[in-house]
Amino acid sequence: MQTPTDSAPPTSRRPGRPRGSVAANREVTRDRILDAATELFAAQGFHGTSVAEISARADIKTGALYHHIKSKEELLWEILRGYTGKALAAATAVTSGAGGPVDKLGALIDVHVEVITDHWREVAIQTRDASALNAEHGVQLQALRQGVQDCWEQVIRECWPDKRESEVRIVASGLLGMVNSLWYWYRPERGDTPEEIAKNFRDVVIGGVG
Amino acid sequence: MQTPTDSAPPTSRRPGRPRGSVAANREVTRDRILDAATELFAAQGFHGTSVAEISARADIKTGALYHHIKSKEELLWEILRGYTGKALAAATAVTSGAGGPVDKLGALIDVHVEVITDHWREVAIQTRDASALNAEHGVQLQALRQGVQDCWEQVIRECWPDKRESEVRIVASGLLGMVNSLWYWYRPERGDTPEEIAKNFRDVVIGGVG
Repeated sequence: MQTPTDSAPPTSRRPGRPRGSVAANREVTRDRILDAATELFAAQGFHGTSVAEISARADIKTGALYHHIKSKEELLWEILRGYTGKALAAATAVTSGAGGPVDKLGALIDVHVEVITDHWREVAIQTRDASALNAEHGVQLQALRQGVQDCWEQVIRECWPDKRESEVRIVASGLLGMVNSLWYWYRPERGDTPEEIAKNFRDVVIGGVG
Repeated sequence: MQTPTDSAPPTSRRPGRPRGSVAANREVTRDRILDAATELFAAQGFHGTSVAEISARADIKTGALYHHIKSKEELLWEILRGYTGKALAAATAVTSGAGGPVDKLGALIDVHVEVITDHWREVAIQTRDASALNAEHGVQLQALRQGVQDCWEQVIRECWPDKRESEVRIVASGLLGMVNSLWYWYRPERGDTPEEIAKNFRDVVIGGVG
């Protein structure tokens, strides 16, 4: 978020209105549009949601909405790259940090559960409607997702050094599937906490039975 | 599939056509329609698929198709209850069979991986379009799915006797999510086998790290 700065030439300001507030307002509005689109896409699908519905939910005129986004597809892309970028940043922080492989596997579970429970609507949209992205965005999203998978594979390779590469990929896909499928059954209001979910996933994956 | 029987009165048969072949043909046609619908729903979604497209792919006239099914919704229901019923039968056979809890957990992983890899298209349809079922079918499908979840919870409860009920549910949901999300990345032509996948899931869930 931009903040007012004293170095701005006074001529560029409207009286009584600090420079930067236009940009800040723009960002607030844009976030409101993204939130509205996320709720609607998750509830009724990308194809089942019109730009007019998004405008209405964001409390903005449809014409004004197009000052903020170019298309419904751009909204989808912003939503999907937003949470996937967070997942990649969190996983990369774990793999590039200190600690042994078992600690890192536990930390990957913790941070990924946190991202997915924070963004279960976005994951629902990804699962159902990622195919509505244009080709370029589809490739970019796949690269972000592969980045997350690479982090998991790197740690899994160290945790289970006897596994072949095809097995490392199977385990990574399975564990990411375990966490990602939270979108299907996790709802904050039902009382499960991200901490309790992560603890139980760690118990099973790291501890096994008994 | 019905087969011709010698005890049928000759008057009920058309000359040269064994009794039962009409019913058998009906069933073959119905299976062909279900297969066509499964492929199309998985590739382009329930809402994105017309009855005319299903008829064309099943190589049957649209009018004739309605002799076999009442509606597109009925096709969706037959597809979803078909594979979910198989998953429930397989899980129930494990829980009601012999063996200790750890063996049963391994067997649940084996049979569920087998069902899901055999029916990854159906799981894709379930994940994206189960909300298109009518209310009655939605409730019936949920009961079948809950039956599968109950089998897993029963075995997990015995494997990890210190876990609270909310934790048993989290572990069951997580492990089912791990296997169910195979629909997203498993494709038989890529060379992973159901046996290799199940073995690696068992290694992690039962063995843990190291």
